[in-house]
Amino acid sequence: MNTTLELNAHWRERLAAWLERPRFQYFITALILINAVILGLETAPSVMQRWGGMLRLLDHLILGCFVIEIGLRFIAHGWRLLRDPWGLFDTLVIAIALVPASGPLAVLRALRVLRVLRLISIVPSMKVVVQSLLSSLPGMGSIVALLGLIFYVAAVIATQLFGEAFPEWFGTLGDSLYTLFQVMTLESWSMGIVRPVMEEFPYAWLYFIPFILIATFMMLNLFIAVIVDAIQHQREANTAADAAAEPASPQALLSELQALRSELQELRKQLPPRD
Amino acid sequence: MNTTLELNAHWRERLAAWLERPRFQYFITALILINAVILGLETAPSVMQRWGGMLRLLDHLILGCFVIEIGLRFIAHGWRLLRDPWGLFDTLVIAIALVPASGPLAVLRALRVLRVLRLISIVPSMKVVVQSLLSSLPGMGSIVALLGLIFYVAAVIATQLFGEAFPEWFGTLGDSLYTLFQVMTLESWSMGIVRPVMEEFPYAWLYFIPFILIATFMMLNLFIAVIVDAIQHQREANTAADAAAEPASPQALLSELQALRSELQELRKQLPPRD
Amino acid sequence: MNTTLELNAHWRERLAAWLERPRFQYFITALILINAVILGLETAPSVMQRWGGMLRLLDHLILGCFVIEIGLRFIAHGWRLLRDPWGLFDTLVIAIALVPASGPLAVLRALRVLRVLRLISIVPSMKVVVQSLLSSLPGMGSIVALLGLIFYVAAVIATQLFGEAFPEWFGTLGDSLYTLFQVMTLESWSMGIVRPVMEEFPYAWLYFIPFILIATFMMLNLFIAVIVDAIQHQREANTAADAAAEPASPQALLSELQALRSELQELRKQLPPRD
Amino acid sequence: MNTTLELNAHWRERLAAWLERPRFQYFITALILINAVILGLETAPSVMQRWGGMLRLLDHLILGCFVIEIGLRFIAHGWRLLRDPWGLFDTLVIAIALVPASGPLAVLRALRVLRVLRLISIVPSMKVVVQSLLSSLPGMGSIVALLGLIFYVAAVIATQLFGEAFPEWFGTLGDSLYTLFQVMTLESWSMGIVRPVMEEFPYAWLYFIPFILIATFMMLNLFIAVIVDAIQHQREANTAADAAAEPASPQALLSELQALRSELQELRKQLPPRD
Repeated sequence: MNTTLELNAHWRERLAAWLERPRFQYFITALILINAVILGLETAPSVMQRWGGMLRLLDHLILGCFVIEIGLRFIAHGWRLLRDPWGLFDTLVIAIALVPASGPLAVLRALRVLRVLRLISIVPSMKVVVQSLLSSLPGMGSIVALLGLIFYVAAVIATQLFGEAFPEWFGTLGDSLYTLFQVMTLESWSMGIVRPVMEEFPYAWLYFIPFILIATFMMLNLFIAVIVDAIQHQREANTAADAAAEPASPQALLSELQALRSELQELRKQLPPRD
Repeated sequence: MNTTLELNAHWRERLAAWLERPRFQYFITALILINAVILGLETAPSVMQRWGGMLRLLDHLILGCFVIEIGLRFIAHGWRLLRDPWGLFDTLVIAIALVPASGPLAVLRALRVLRVLRLISIVPSMKVVVQSLLSSLPGMGSIVALLGLIFYVAAVIATQLFGEAFPEWFGTLGDSLYTLFQVMTLESWSMGIVRPVMEEFPYAWLYFIPFILIATFMMLNLFIAVIVDAIQHQREANTAADAAAEPASPQALLSELQALRSELQELRKQLPPRD
Repeated sequence: MNTTLELNAHWRERLAAWLERPRFQYFITALILINAVILGLETAPSVMQRWGGMLRLLDHLILGCFVIEIGLRFIAHGWRLLRDPWGLFDTLVIAIALVPASGPLAVLRALRVLRVLRLISIVPSMKVVVQSLLSSLPGMGSIVALLGLIFYVAAVIATQLFGEAFPEWFGTLGDSLYTLFQVMTLESWSMGIVRPVMEEFPYAWLYFIPFILIATFMMLNLFIAVIVDAIQHQREANTAADAAAEPASPQALLSELQALRSELQELRKQLPPRD
Repeated sequence: MNTTLELNAHWRERLAAWLERPRFQYFITALILINAVILGLETAPSVMQRWGGMLRLLDHLILGCFVIEIGLRFIAHGWRLLRDPWGLFDTLVIAIALVPASGPLAVLRALRVLRVLRLISIVPSMKVVVQSLLSSLPGMGSIVALLGLIFYVAAVIATQLFGEAFPEWFGTLGDSLYTLFQVMTLESWSMGIVRPVMEEFPYAWLYFIPFILIATFMMLNLFIAVIVDAIQHQREANTAADAAAEPASPQALLSELQALRSELQELRKQLPPRD
């Protein structure tokens, strides 16, 4: 029994190693790229009329390969695969394609193309970029929370002030949030939204101009937080590299000096006392 | 009499300590969050029709709690509370809700939701973010003043040049200031404002293009001032941390060297003079 | 004769000193601010109907003061005043107000308000900001020249390709330059300009998308050049401050060490040669 | 035979040197500037009616000069000219003008003005700017690839979800890519595109808001990558300059110290052993 388990573990390790061989990874990458092209072609009705059957067949074949690959990874790693965020991501993206996309779930058909995003988890340089992008998110946390709070408060005020007169833009809390997001991106904020509102409420600019100033100032600070963070990381990386490269740090100088002093003290002891 | 005062001071201190206990702070935070949800629900007519009475009752109860809390803080800290900006902020935000919101003050009803912003003064991480945002304002002072001056001058010119032909956009000094703010945000500046103006005044671009270049260049410099300031603060924090961590500063090396030299001078005195 | 000249020079120096006394500067600043308010009020027809005469009188009086002040500065500094950029600026801004604004020069009436900009040359902190803004311009020179070249080439191409079909936007070289500037600011570039053009020329995006990418990429680099320059200046200022503050520079250490070595060499000479 | 070749090589070197003489470069620069003005004037019908013949003649003469210059450079450098990117650029830009611009190639007539871009390859300071702009591109590679992947996936989804209802915006993959580019630049994204789409598909914001957040966040990071890179280059240049300028580097101190210690060791040997 024990031996069987060990043998099993041995095979699973070999399977895991085989799945991570470059040749296998290139094969999966090629499949993803071909699948991307197929899913792109499927959006063209003229292509679908002529080659539709073949494209759908190929799509199903490639999907089959992906299912088998994920299955092998589950055999190799067990349920730990789902604890690794990238493993979870790959599994979800494949799972979407297996849900029967009909009735209320028809929208899932369009989401099948998300499986092309597996390119990110399989190409190392893209994985690094996404991880570094994600790593800058936590530093933005408290500003995003503050921005969320301000949006909520501003949306409640806008709904109460302008909701009745402009139901399309400020009718519900959700409408107000959407409109305020549009205003924050500065898209048609004046000609599209604020000028018409000001015809009804001449003092509406007292609400919108401060909102724009506060929201864009906070976006600016979000921006700056990310920049300063990136420069800081860069500097730390530099300092670490400097410390490794520089042979004559002040520390080295100090120990050299201390050695010199003890040498001198020995010298003094060696000398005859002055009489 | 003296004892009563001291006793009083003792009780006020204990009250202040009790008000700052984490458990009490969590309770107030929870009340604020519940109040935020209630004020959000009150914007939905369908909800108000069914649960309106209960929501209003809850809102009044929570407001009562806030009034009692502010009252206790006044007892604990006295009028000094209003000298602390956050204490003043909390007091104002509660005071708005107590003003009878009717007649010309009906707009104050919508401002009741501002009390949700108390979340900022009670959650320490949000307080820190807002304080750091506010601390970047003074460095922007002189550029903002300059931008204000340029806006004023540009608005006077625009009112005199285009005011008669386009009263909606440049009719009064206020209209011109608003329109120039819109132009500075680049919203519909050309299709919405400048192209129509240029049909009447073909050389209007000689006014608007320089204005856009100057205004956006100054916004850019405002932006840069904040970035450079943030990087500078970061660097100072780094340098302070370095100074604390580094045991072998040039200063330490120098004193080591000076000790070495005096040792050597003593040695020379010890030696017999060469004859 | 010589004495007269010297006496003259003496009086001119005293006059220059008197003109730079803080009290006189505050007086001029106050006049500028009052003038700013008057020129603002003159844009309101209702105010002009009632107080027009008085406002115009005050305006003329203040202008008179400015003319006298500039005159005194000319007496004190002679024509050198025009070689100082701020002196030239003040003179020009006053001169505009003295040109009779009628007929084809009526537009100059609107430019009278430019004299409020003298606030910049008289308030030291604003002067510093403007000088630092101007000092960042030369570093932008070569990118601006390159951007100008690209705009010119793009405008010639657009005029030839789209000029006949869309004379309003691309009819002349000037129209094309204006439209491309609008496209670069991203204002209505797609819904307003490129989509209509694409209905006539389906491949117009091959012209506009690269133009947008190149123009915004160059604006970004302009931006970065200014940021990096500002950070660089900041760093140099820091380094200079460090050098002044730090008593133990490596240079000081080295001279200390050299003194130590010469001491040691003297010591050796002092010792009896080993036999 | 050998001598002929060597003589030939000698003449080619002299020709290359002559082509790089400042006077010749200034001549070509002047020709380019004159040509730029001519090509600009050719866009004005009124000018063409009067001076058309002369302008076309001048244009052909200058083009002739350019052809001769490129020919001489081919004689001087041989086919290596095409391996230098600037040489290739100059050749292509001249070649466009020589293709007969008629029938389907009529668009090439408009591209003749590209030859004005030769100014970049002939003015050293512009060449430096373009090279530094291009050198910042490789660092953007992986983010641009990721952005491309996200655009592709988003376009496939948009075509499948909204293609039928809004064929003008999302009818084909190309239409969707163009519309998403417009949305990313925030041009009329809400009033022009998303609000109309939301009238048909009320939940369309669930697709567009995340797309905008992701796309602008990635643009921001692209931006930051370029800034951090520029600051990094600046710092490296500074460090190199510091190392060259500073005579007392820690390395110099260390060797001074080591010399001192060996001096001291010699001294000890010189002393009589303590008995």
